[in-house]
Amino acid sequence: MKQYKIFVTGKQGIFDPAGETARHALDNLGYIGIENLRIDKYIQLDTSDTVTAEMVKEMCEKLLANPVIEDFLIEETVMTVAEEAAEQTKAEADE
Amino acid sequence: MKQYKIFVTGKQGIFDPAGETARHALDNLGYIGIENLRIDKYIQLDTSDTVTAEMVKEMCEKLLANPVIEDFLIEETVMTVAEEAAEQTKAEADE
Repeated sequence: MKQYKIFVTGKQGIFDPAGETARHALDNLGYIGIENLRIDKYIQLDTSDTVTAEMVKEMCEKLLANPVIEDFLIEETVMTVAEEAAEQTKAEADE
Repeated sequence: MKQYKIFVTGKQGIFDPAGETARHALDNLGYIGIENLRIDKYIQLDTSDTVTAEMVKEMCEKLLANPVIEDFLIEETVMTVAEEAAEQTKAEADE
């Protein structure tokens, strides 16, 4: 199994209303020293071993990100059999 | 300046409609081997040096995450003066 972490972030200069609203709300709660706050997307994709990083890039370009206003960064993690088993056990324990 | 990266993710068992929709759309586009897809929030927070990780945790609990249905993970990066200058130059070049 492979795990991809994809960070989809607004391009420089694109307004981020959610981030701006959160920043104002933090100001109103009395937090000082916040210089910048952006809220973007964090996608976790679990795939079979046949899915390559190149395919994930294509998925981002076609569907997961909007290339006009968003950039994306893909991080790949290949899970070992032991890690997969641990993950499985954890998921079962959580249920 | 400090930079915090905050990952706000749905708790185990909480339905993620955006992720589910994207997964179906990828299926329809002909991608096979997608086992799981979650879309969560990735928050980048730039603050002055006075803002501590403890304060950021409090901000998450109060405002940035919903502790009933979401978990959060905070990563702290302290930027050196040189990195800050590089960031500044980059931001100016992008404008």
